[in-house]
Amino acid sequence: MQRKALPLAEVYRLLEPGPVVLLSTARKGQTNVMTMSWHTMMEFEPPLVGCVVSNRNFTFDILKATKECVINIPTVELAEKVVGCGNTSGRDVDKFSSFHLTPAPGSQVQAPLIEECYANLECRVADAKMVAKYNFFVLEVMKAWIDPSRKRPRMIHHTGRGAFIVDGRTIQLRSAMK
Amino acid sequence: MQRKALPLAEVYRLLEPGPVVLLSTARKGQTNVMTMSWHTMMEFEPPLVGCVVSNRNFTFDILKATKECVINIPTVELAEKVVGCGNTSGRDVDKFSSFHLTPAPGSQVQAPLIEECYANLECRVADAKMVAKYNFFVLEVMKAWIDPSRKRPRMIHHTGRGAFIVDGRTIQLRSAMK
Repeated sequence: MQRKALPLAEVYRLLEPGPVVLLSTARKGQTNVMTMSWHTMMEFEPPLVGCVVSNRNFTFDILKATKECVINIPTVELAEKVVGCGNTSGRDVDKFSSFHLTPAPGSQVQAPLIEECYANLECRVADAKMVAKYNFFVLEVMKAWIDPSRKRPRMIHHTGRGAFIVDGRTIQLRSAMK
Repeated sequence: MQRKALPLAEVYRLLEPGPVVLLSTARKGQTNVMTMSWHTMMEFEPPLVGCVVSNRNFTFDILKATKECVINIPTVELAEKVVGCGNTSGRDVDKFSSFHLTPAPGSQVQAPLIEECYANLECRVADAKMVAKYNFFVLEVMKAWIDPSRKRPRMIHHTGRGAFIVDGRTIQLRSAMK
């Protein structure tokens, strides 16, 4: 698998369209993965990402304690594993092992990249003030990676109860928007 | 155009997949529309939606003052109008008129629904504490409407510089996720 650094100013192009992502964390040698769709860009550069991690999730305590994670962006080929990670808890199973995901070391954080994903965003918690009320973390993306060999990565978008929309065609319009 | 109330508990199924939306507002008889992709669900029910509205946008002051808006969800047929609304400012043009959008009255807010959109979510600002630092508003959805005559509405997802991914096929997996 190839990895190429993506300029941080381009990160919004990956997250703005709303893909399901896999959030990976690590603490004391134990890793975890959770499935997440409740995220939004908050700033272009340095890229800030807001996301909700429920305090019922095993990831919540790890993220609060370590203040580090990786946002991994899977493509449709990984849909079964994405749902598998959503259906289980890191309290009960080792998800990397159960779903045959491969951890790879990051450059800025201790949390592992998921090798099989198209993109990996190494993040640190930048603001935890909204955690108590909303379980809402503001993350700063410190380093971004993509797999340059994938020319048409198709992300998936959760629409509830295990239904996912797969990326279709792309249209290009004249835009002054970033 | 038909309108059917959507149970509030179902709102997440519309916003979670990350569609581009049109945010409509009104103040003193003047309406405005802005294009927005930086939003996320924050709670299922009552539905809370977090979103970034830049303080450079004309909408920012209206939203701060009136504490009301409508999140309108367009389909691909409206892509040109979506980009048009993103390329212009309500300081200079009346967007409903310029882009031939039809305002319709809401039931809970003074801001207008956009008749041509597949879904309309009437919202009130629930929390403005993150506005000063992040331009981040927490909205509560008070009432949700969909057009029941549209069986396969295809949303669009911005990937930067006027490129949009159109919803493709749907896949269904066994999931314990909501």
